[in-house]
Amino acid sequence: LYSDKVMEHFTNPHNVGELPDADGIGEVGNAKCGDIMKMYLKIDGGKITDIKFKTFGCGAAIATSSIATDMIKGQTIEDALKLTNKAVVEALDGLPPAKIHCSVLAEQAVKAALADYYRRQ
Amino acid sequence: LYSDKVMEHFTNPHNVGELPDADGIGEVGNAKCGDIMKMYLKIDGGKITDIKFKTFGCGAAIATSSIATDMIKGQTIEDALKLTNKAVVEALDGLPPAKIHCSVLAEQAVKAALADYYRRQ
Ligand code: FES
Repeated sequence: LYSDKVMEHFTNPHNVGELPDADGIGEVGNAKCGDIMKMYLKIDGGKITDIKFKTFGCGAAIATSSIATDMIKGQTIEDALKLTNKAVVEALDGLPPAKIHCSVLAEQAVKAALADYYRRQ
Repeated sequence: LYSDKVMEHFTNPHNVGELPDADGIGEVGNAKCGDIMKMYLKIDGGKITDIKFKTFGCGAAIATSSIATDMIKGQTIEDALKLTNKAVVEALDGLPPAKIHCSVLAEQAVKAALADYYRRQ
């Protein structure tokens, strides 16, 4: 049902937690299943220097957020804004169709956190 | 959004894992969100002596399974079969309407594991 990469990131997720001194925080909800995702960013010199997430969502939400945060850590804001849930799902070697909606949470939360960062400037 | 009890069982779930020498195993899927739940039972003298679960489901699925397994551990098969998802949700001081479907997984998995136990006799 799930790829090895999904199970790896689900059982041992990266970048889980909060950043008390975050420069941007994004919180998004999933209309389909009622789950929420919160993303915390530290930004320095236009780059994402640290990133953490917390979710009440399922294994697919955890796995996609784990790999998505890995992918954008160290990137510029411009590159991070280009992250799509399609790229994240591909990096995980796919997800069952019923779980694609979970992967959207990570992409939306990153964008919401960057919007929050700009709003604070 | 979530009660203290839900957050307690979500952040520190009880009875997570597998039982390699289980007497009954139940696996059920959730048509609404595509998540799965697996329940393992040890049964001795008509009583549930041990119980563990594994799920790919969300925080509500984890919290309901954690408290449901607490509730039926040590019970007779007859009493365990009476467990309803309504009773589990009440024991958690409620769940948001969008997450009630997640609580059904635990009840169904217990019943599937008991059916598997009877099938093996
Ligand atoms: S959304 Fe699937 S178990 Fe909760």
